[in-house]
Amino acid sequence: MLYYLFEYLDKTYDLPGAGVFQYITFRASLSVITSLIICLLFGKRIIRVLHARQVGETIRDLGLEGQAQKAGTPTMGGLMILAGILVPTLLFAKLENIYILLLVITTVWMGLIGFLDDYIKVFRKNKKGLAGKFKVIGQVGLGLIVGSILYFHNDVTIKNLEKDPTVVDELRVETRAHLPVYGEAHKSTTTTIPFFKNNELDYSSLISWISPAAKDYAWLIFIPIVIFIITAVSNGANLTDGIDGLATGTSAIIGITLGVFAYVSGSIIFADYLNIMYIPNTGELVIFIAAFVGACIGFLWYNSYPAQVFMGDTGSLALGGIIAVFAIAIRKELLIPILCGIFLVENLSVVMQVSYFKYTRKKFGEGRRIFKMSPLHHHYQKLGYNESKIVTRFWIVGIFLAVITFVTLKLR
Amino acid sequence: MLYYLFEYLDKTYDLPGAGVFQYITFRASLSVITSLIICLLFGKRIIRVLHARQVGETIRDLGLEGQAQKAGTPTMGGLMILAGILVPTLLFAKLENIYILLLVITTVWMGLIGFLDDYIKVFRKNKKGLAGKFKVIGQVGLGLIVGSILYFHNDVTIKNLEKDPTVVDELRVETRAHLPVYGEAHKSTTTTIPFFKNNELDYSSLISWISPAAKDYAWLIFIPIVIFIITAVSNGANLTDGIDGLATGTSAIIGITLGVFAYVSGSIIFADYLNIMYIPNTGELVIFIAAFVGACIGFLWYNSYPAQVFMGDTGSLALGGIIAVFAIAIRKELLIPILCGIFLVENLSVVMQVSYFKYTRKKFGEGRRIFKMSPLHHHYQKLGYNESKIVTRFWIVGIFLAVITFVTLKLR
Repeated sequence: MLYYLFEYLDKTYDLPGAGVFQYITFRASLSVITSLIICLLFGKRIIRVLHARQVGETIRDLGLEGQAQKAGTPTMGGLMILAGILVPTLLFAKLENIYILLLVITTVWMGLIGFLDDYIKVFRKNKKGLAGKFKVIGQVGLGLIVGSILYFHNDVTIKNLEKDPTVVDELRVETRAHLPVYGEAHKSTTTTIPFFKNNELDYSSLISWISPAAKDYAWLIFIPIVIFIITAVSNGANLTDGIDGLATGTSAIIGITLGVFAYVSGSIIFADYLNIMYIPNTGELVIFIAAFVGACIGFLWYNSYPAQVFMGDTGSLALGGIIAVFAIAIRKELLIPILCGIFLVENLSVVMQVSYFKYTRKKFGEGRRIFKMSPLHHHYQKLGYNESKIVTRFWIVGIFLAVITFVTLKLR
Repeated sequence: MLYYLFEYLDKTYDLPGAGVFQYITFRASLSVITSLIICLLFGKRIIRVLHARQVGETIRDLGLEGQAQKAGTPTMGGLMILAGILVPTLLFAKLENIYILLLVITTVWMGLIGFLDDYIKVFRKNKKGLAGKFKVIGQVGLGLIVGSILYFHNDVTIKNLEKDPTVVDELRVETRAHLPVYGEAHKSTTTTIPFFKNNELDYSSLISWISPAAKDYAWLIFIPIVIFIITAVSNGANLTDGIDGLATGTSAIIGITLGVFAYVSGSIIFADYLNIMYIPNTGELVIFIAAFVGACIGFLWYNSYPAQVFMGDTGSLALGGIIAVFAIAIRKELLIPILCGIFLVENLSVVMQVSYFKYTRKKFGEGRRIFKMSPLHHHYQKLGYNESKIVTRFWIVGIFLAVITFVTLKLR
């Protein structure tokens, strides 16, 4: 909302310096700083309140070293993350921007589901939390909303680079600007995919081979994909959140990468120079993701080993949901298997462990395990690695994956 | 050197895909990946060799918890960092680039001084290491070389944005390009400084008030400043390297920030858009700093708490020296007090502690202390904070400072 105040001041009084508020980089920096400060300042207070109300997670007995000391550590710290994301976004972003709206809805929605889950676990002492059924309904519901908005809303468009030299020359003389020339904004189901021609894939091409008219039903492909991605990533983040600082740091690394993509995709100059898809209005998302990264890093202050607070599902479901929706909004969702590789592997380790156990129990009458324990991070704990070391190494792998993500696009 | 191979292949055979090697972003990504792989793969072997030769640091008895377990941890791990920086740079950067040459010299020079120091400590069992005198001579010597090259070499230039509209129109029609138009490259002692008009300061203006002719002697100002910065930052990094992963992670954060600055300062399009100084040829430095960041993060794999290896002066002096010279090369050295705030504060904590102790001993006959122990990180250890927590929190402060650095420039 401060954005509008400064815009008003700038226009009305020609206030020197207020114009800097137009700059995305400047507002994004303020956004990080604000969310860091929110987490650092209010963190201590929130932890004290959670402690007083005994909002401690009932720790599963995993037979892990140092586990006993974790008993009594309050959970639901995700509330700090939610505040750290929402407050700077409301302060510094243009709220009429469709992408900002979408991400605010995602944050609140997933935060709420996670909160209900934590609430039931903690206060109803029901270890299972929110019934799996409701969680899935929540995730699918969000997928439907997000998918429909992105597919049908008129502000969600892309522009293609104008290649006709006579048109380009004419437009350039007209505007006297040295900007690259893009055509009209248009709806499109095109997304980014590495190794394909031009790094592009049109979802509608997956269906239009049936008949040209089928193109109008591309949402039949798009919306289920959105639902799948949201569900997979939020569950991945949820599973990754098993040792101190792991989900927090991993999400921050992913957030920074997505932020770079949003910044360059949303700028006509950078998108042209780097030869990636230009998506009007997504630049504003940088302010959101800056708050996201700031909130993760600020939360890490208290969540790093040894943790004084856990995020709970309040945090992890929101982090996962946001990452998924953000990636879809900037049409980079097909990079998720690489970029969010940590979430993927944690997810897979559980699936493999459980399936193999069931399979061997059926076949040999006795269940066998692939990992000493799943999700994967517990496997390394059982192997005797220090918790702090495991976390740092997972972060390093996360950074490695982020770099690989950039390489696949062969950016200039 | 691979750069030249691919350039040759591209020109001779018009090999599809070889052109991607022209892109700075692509080569920088390869550079990070290579240095990460070097550190991860050879790290284990190097640690085994260092261990076998008993290259363990003689740990000062600081009365700190968990200190005993550090005895026997090999030092000189900085060799991993040096390899992780130099190999990718030699492979992927244009070696005739003056800035690349400058940074390679810095890495080897400071690495050598640090190595000598470690060597004397470890094999001569002389705890004092290289005499302080030689260290200072080394740092001052490097400052003289770097300062002179930057001041006198013909390839070290900047370009100013052309503001005359008729010239701009003419040039644009001529080149048929939509690039922003810059004037001729010229020598200049201008640097970046926040809060000043245009964010610029000309070192020669500090001396030209004496007489206009004094402008030619601006090196009398510039070279001492270079020497001071190199000495201060490398000592800062050296002091910061006191607990597991602290100097490594902090340097990586600083490196990423400097990399962003180099990327945008070296690109005519980005520099114009973001309204910062355009410095031709510095884009190539991104490949160097990518290796630097990769080496830090790769080293962190083994250096994170609980550390299997320490970098020693071999690492810390090189890290500090590189950061200083890099910042000077891209004319962002006056941002160092903010960006390298961790190094600064660690440095200050020692100076304050020692001075106050001496002062009070003289005045009251008994020395008093400001901190429980210096450098600052030991103060928090004495207060009972977990080593891993202190390190993560210092990193978070480092990230915060990096963001502040961006804000001061009011980038678009």
